[in-house]
Amino acid sequence: MESVDAIKKVIRTIPDFPKRGITFKDITPILSDLALLKASVQYLKKPFEDQNITKVVAIESRGFVLGPMIALELGAGFVPVRKEGKLPRETYSVAYDLEYGSGRIEMHLDSILPSDRVLIHDDVLATGGTAAAAEELVERSGAEIVGFTFLLELPAMNGRSKLHHDHTIHAVVQG
Amino acid sequence: MESVDAIKKVIRTIPDFPKRGITFKDITPILSDLALLKASVQYLKKPFEDQNITKVVAIESRGFVLGPMIALELGAGFVPVRKEGKLPRETYSVAYDLEYGSGRIEMHLDSILPSDRVLIHDDVLATGGTAAAAEELVERSGAEIVGFTFLLELPAMNGRSKLHHDHTIHAVVQG
Repeated sequence: MESVDAIKKVIRTIPDFPKRGITFKDITPILSDLALLKASVQYLKKPFEDQNITKVVAIESRGFVLGPMIALELGAGFVPVRKEGKLPRETYSVAYDLEYGSGRIEMHLDSILPSDRVLIHDDVLATGGTAAAAEELVERSGAEIVGFTFLLELPAMNGRSKLHHDHTIHAVVQG
Repeated sequence: MESVDAIKKVIRTIPDFPKRGITFKDITPILSDLALLKASVQYLKKPFEDQNITKVVAIESRGFVLGPMIALELGAGFVPVRKEGKLPRETYSVAYDLEYGSGRIEMHLDSILPSDRVLIHDDVLATGGTAAAAEELVERSGAEIVGFTFLLELPAMNGRSKLHHDHTIHAVVQG
């Protein structure tokens, strides 16, 4: 299997995108390479293999790429968290701030049961704004959050501090 | 394996969403059920199993959910097509119209080679506006388009007529 270093090596750093002062991490080269894509899913799910995860919750839109594959590997269902106004049925809704802008994210009320054991996924943990909002969405459902799994964490931005420290917070690559 | 009928049965129809006069098809109940999720991927990839697909191109953001799993099953890489201004490197860019609004979609220039054999995926084929725009994006790259695979086609909207008829156009469910 491809190594974590091989995954890290193809992530591109784009300064001043989408705005001056923001450094963007481009993970698309991982996705277009089948071996790196497969390895990423394996590393993302590894710490949660024996945790009886029943739902993987991922955040629109880049979390949608790897989230369903993590769910499949763990034998769990997939639940999308979407930007405001995109889910047609009744939702939980939480406001968030991120590096560039703010908004609301939403999750269908009936997508998670209080008996579910949930793993939350996004591609990148930066400021932690959206991850913390997703955490709040799942908490409102009454389900148990087992942890978070990210492909890339930017430790300089300290997003981890925004998440409850009783959850396992896993990142495949530190960047 | 779950049947096509079982998949069809859980798709919900929401009238007047996101705008009056638009009928929205909600596929999220398929995603949260592991057996239906797995079966959907199998049906989506079936006609393309022996077609030597090298890249699966899917359209933001609902195409991102199943596209990478189809790619994995076919042994292909995954290439995201995103809304304008979200891909950081040099892109092909095409304007499109859809049921509610218009915009541009983009694909990284270097994500597809002329030697690639491409399968295009989105969750729903409605008017065909975004699918036709994605087709044009891939054509500009010089790669060969083998076909399209959709989870749901709404035949009343005649989206199929917007796509080139020399491509295989596959939809798991007609709705």
